[in-house]
Amino acid sequence: MKIALAQLNYHIGNFESNTNNILNCIRKAKSMQVDIVVFSELAISGYPPRDFLEFDHFVSKCLDSINIIASECIDIAAIIGSPSFNHEPKGKRLYNSAFFLCDGKVTAIRNKTLLPNYDVFDEYRYFEPNRTFEIIKYKGKRIALTICEDLWNITENPLYVVNPMDELAKQNPDLIINIAASPFNYEQSETRKEILISNAKHYNLPLFYVNHIGGQTELLFDGGSMVVDNKGKIFEELNYFEEDLRIYDLRFKNSECKIQNVEIENSKLQTPNSKLLFIHDALVMGIKDYFHKLGFKQAILGLSGGIDSAVTCVLAVKAMGRENVKGVLLPSRFSSDHSIKDAEELAKNLGISYEIIEIEEAFNTFEKTLETQFAGLPSDLAEENIQARVRAVILMALSNKFGYILLNTSNKSEAAVGYGTLYGDMCGGISVLGDVYKTQVYELANFINKDKEIIPINSIKKPPSAELRFDQKDSDSLPEYEILDKILFQYIEMSKGPDEIIAMNFDKNIVLKVLKMVNSSEWKRYQTPPILRISPKAFGMGRRMPIAAKYLI
Amino acid sequence: MKIALAQLNYHIGNFESNTNNILNCIRKAKSMQVDIVVFSELAISGYPPRDFLEFDHFVSKCLDSINIIASECIDIAAIIGSPSFNHEPKGKRLYNSAFFLCDGKVTAIRNKTLLPNYDVFDEYRYFEPNRTFEIIKYKGKRIALTICEDLWNITENPLYVVNPMDELAKQNPDLIINIAASPFNYEQSETRKEILISNAKHYNLPLFYVNHIGGQTELLFDGGSMVVDNKGKIFEELNYFEEDLRIYDLRFKNSECKIQNVEIENSKLQTPNSKLLFIHDALVMGIKDYFHKLGFKQAILGLSGGIDSAVTCVLAVKAMGRENVKGVLLPSRFSSDHSIKDAEELAKNLGISYEIIEIEEAFNTFEKTLETQFAGLPSDLAEENIQARVRAVILMALSNKFGYILLNTSNKSEAAVGYGTLYGDMCGGISVLGDVYKTQVYELANFINKDKEIIPINSIKKPPSAELRFDQKDSDSLPEYEILDKILFQYIEMSKGPDEIIAMNFDKNIVLKVLKMVNSSEWKRYQTPPILRISPKAFGMGRRMPIAAKYLI
Repeated sequence: MKIALAQLNYHIGNFESNTNNILNCIRKAKSMQVDIVVFSELAISGYPPRDFLEFDHFVSKCLDSINIIASECIDIAAIIGSPSFNHEPKGKRLYNSAFFLCDGKVTAIRNKTLLPNYDVFDEYRYFEPNRTFEIIKYKGKRIALTICEDLWNITENPLYVVNPMDELAKQNPDLIINIAASPFNYEQSETRKEILISNAKHYNLPLFYVNHIGGQTELLFDGGSMVVDNKGKIFEELNYFEEDLRIYDLRFKNSECKIQNVEIENSKLQTPNSKLLFIHDALVMGIKDYFHKLGFKQAILGLSGGIDSAVTCVLAVKAMGRENVKGVLLPSRFSSDHSIKDAEELAKNLGISYEIIEIEEAFNTFEKTLETQFAGLPSDLAEENIQARVRAVILMALSNKFGYILLNTSNKSEAAVGYGTLYGDMCGGISVLGDVYKTQVYELANFINKDKEIIPINSIKKPPSAELRFDQKDSDSLPEYEILDKILFQYIEMSKGPDEIIAMNFDKNIVLKVLKMVNSSEWKRYQTPPILRISPKAFGMGRRMPIAAKYLI
Repeated sequence: MKIALAQLNYHIGNFESNTNNILNCIRKAKSMQVDIVVFSELAISGYPPRDFLEFDHFVSKCLDSINIIASECIDIAAIIGSPSFNHEPKGKRLYNSAFFLCDGKVTAIRNKTLLPNYDVFDEYRYFEPNRTFEIIKYKGKRIALTICEDLWNITENPLYVVNPMDELAKQNPDLIINIAASPFNYEQSETRKEILISNAKHYNLPLFYVNHIGGQTELLFDGGSMVVDNKGKIFEELNYFEEDLRIYDLRFKNSECKIQNVEIENSKLQTPNSKLLFIHDALVMGIKDYFHKLGFKQAILGLSGGIDSAVTCVLAVKAMGRENVKGVLLPSRFSSDHSIKDAEELAKNLGISYEIIEIEEAFNTFEKTLETQFAGLPSDLAEENIQARVRAVILMALSNKFGYILLNTSNKSEAAVGYGTLYGDMCGGISVLGDVYKTQVYELANFINKDKEIIPINSIKKPPSAELRFDQKDSDSLPEYEILDKILFQYIEMSKGPDEIIAMNFDKNIVLKVLKMVNSSEWKRYQTPPILRISPKAFGMGRRMPIAAKYLI
């Protein structure tokens, strides 16, 4: 049996492009005598469709696309994820379904049983869980067709009380197919492999797995589609962060199964990818798809001479091309000479166009405009924020006038403790580094510079500063990032409480101060741009906090 | 049996104040010889605790509070909502529980079966659903103890496949107690009554229902706690939007039950409340609690002379007192004379302090700062947005300098179609009218003015304008609000698709244009302040949309 895995980049709600993309793969697979071509979970709609699913119109559009595709499935079968209506009198309106298409029509539908509803997932918001189990028979083979999370309950303390593969296994399947929408984080590809290997081994079945690639606003999909043999050995992985179509021949002989890639002799495994390379590629794809899927071509960003804007700029250039990235230097009376020099050097290294626009006059005008109100009061955070906001007004004016999207350059450490000016440096269409801790930003910078100095070494070496007052340093307000990031990681990624963190040998006062800063910045983070997600716990849709609360404050 | 209903305003994560508030009620109830005092769902933590629930430390704090309270429950019983740990090896970490406290300890725990996970609710994100059912026996009575949604499956097309009250009914209870966290919308109090009446009637049991009051950032709780007799007649309702403690005597005689308020002879029903009064009171409470629960006292807002800022200002004064509200007039070259006059008149009518700060000079400075970049290009949206953003810089500078929270004054119609400037008039700590359509803002203005002209009549009568260019009117860019709001209502509140809306006799081009405007403004709405929720479908946590998508665009 020839099985094709189609790992594609879908555009949410763009039924025309998704359908065409799917049809092209079906045609190519057909020309290669493929028996079944497999697409990912909710491929028809793109993932996550979120509350578009509450519109019958949207779901009907999905089903229309399924019918168009089905009509082309002659002499080939296709498996495609789509929402479908639940026609029972009880339960939620929809299922998260896998459609089996052949003979020009829909011949079977299987629904997802385990609906992830944690972190960035909201599937129980929309879907009724499946409760009945039936394998699919096709060309003499018995297929256990499962959807993403359906295979993930194979752990010691399972999150769900049922295990769909246990039910399907009773019907003696020959293989497992799993269609997925499993977003990237820097731990996910390893976890995913472990889970898939466990399933293949445990059920002694070959496993064909298809995931999405592409950026969906904050969610980034790395692909990592793969074939695992019945001993739990990964036979082949598809390319990460790229569309890919691979065709396999699966043969059974004396209760053994043999898998072959029909196009190449030796199967391809990914060379071990470094965490940094993964993060790098994910962010580049995230920027690219954010622009592409919104129909924009050009990015603008403020270049401060610091490391955050430098790394953001490099990633943007890799995503969009240097001709599509515009840098703006916005010096003030507090900007050091080296800031301007470092920013210019970066722009020149990258070959992007840039401008220098002084903010001094606008800042002075605001001071004058407010002189009655501020009379006799010392300069403080209010004046610092005015500078950051003047910069935002200028960047947004250029964005509005010329159709750029502004890139936000805040990092995760700053976002966590609220070290940033709302409506100032916290502006932007998308936050590139908002899920990257400051210490990781340094690692990324060094990774970018590994062959050649692209980011001026001085931007990496100098002590971080917001340069909003004379001789300001981040360390005036914050613990050293080496300490800060470790505390933040325990609190944000690991959900540890204050006592547990203090017990890890951090200074009690610093821990309490940091946790208080995090919790009292929720109002600020609520209004920040979407953040490209690369960690298992990013700010945004995966972390939902009350604002008017008093916990650890 | 004497039952007290304690309808309180909880502060999320503030264990000390919540515990004290609960203990005070227990003491008062005890002094009145009450047998059971009932508090609402997740009272210990406040509702919704959201991802604080992912911290064991937070849940432990809840359980510590439960134990403190239990130790005072001598000669009285209390029912209190709290999260609790699931000790089974399978399933999610937590239950949403009702604790039964008496004899100084926890004597029973009942878990919630039906976990709402739609609109603003995320309960399946945190909690394992209950699957076993057992009534509570106390002082010879058999209590069916249920939690909020557990009673809501009594409809024709139930959302859930199980009905907990059907299971409990098999054990012959004498009464139903339901502890709830049921947020306000202008339809909710009627729906809630219908549901409770249906249950009481269907099971032929008296029903004691306790809800929260108070604002929790965007979610507003109106209370509406009540007692329904076994015939389905509402015996008494507690005060709306206020803390309240009422004590009832419940007697059974020959399979009939009799309910009495122990303090007053005739039970109190709420006079029929108008939808507008409800909305008005909800918004006032929402502002008040947002400030109070964040520890702020003073509000600032821009007064444009228009109706939105006028209504926002009046509601703020009612919430905070006139001494705590500061108005700022920010006229530009495009402001009409009457705008300043109307805004001043409003400020004087309310007796609030206000200032006039011209934005002309700052606007000019930005034009000059950008003259190289903008040379030869016609003035357009970029310049309009600069003005709105200059105002925001000034308001935020005052906010930062003096500790005001900025109130956002955008209405729901504008928020829907993206008619507003991000980082400009879309700024603010909280949006007061972001769930109130423009046509409803007019109704609210007239309601406010019903006895006396508080809002200058000219602010109500004049054609709406952003005044960002010469002689600009909202109707230059948008359909008339009468039409726009009806289309928006069908799309947003009713989830109707384009074909269905057009079939309601709206102009096809207008419908398609409006839907496109809504969907292409998601990126803007993502960065707006939290919006006080008064409708069944508000922007924010209850409506989750993809950004980089292409549906109806």
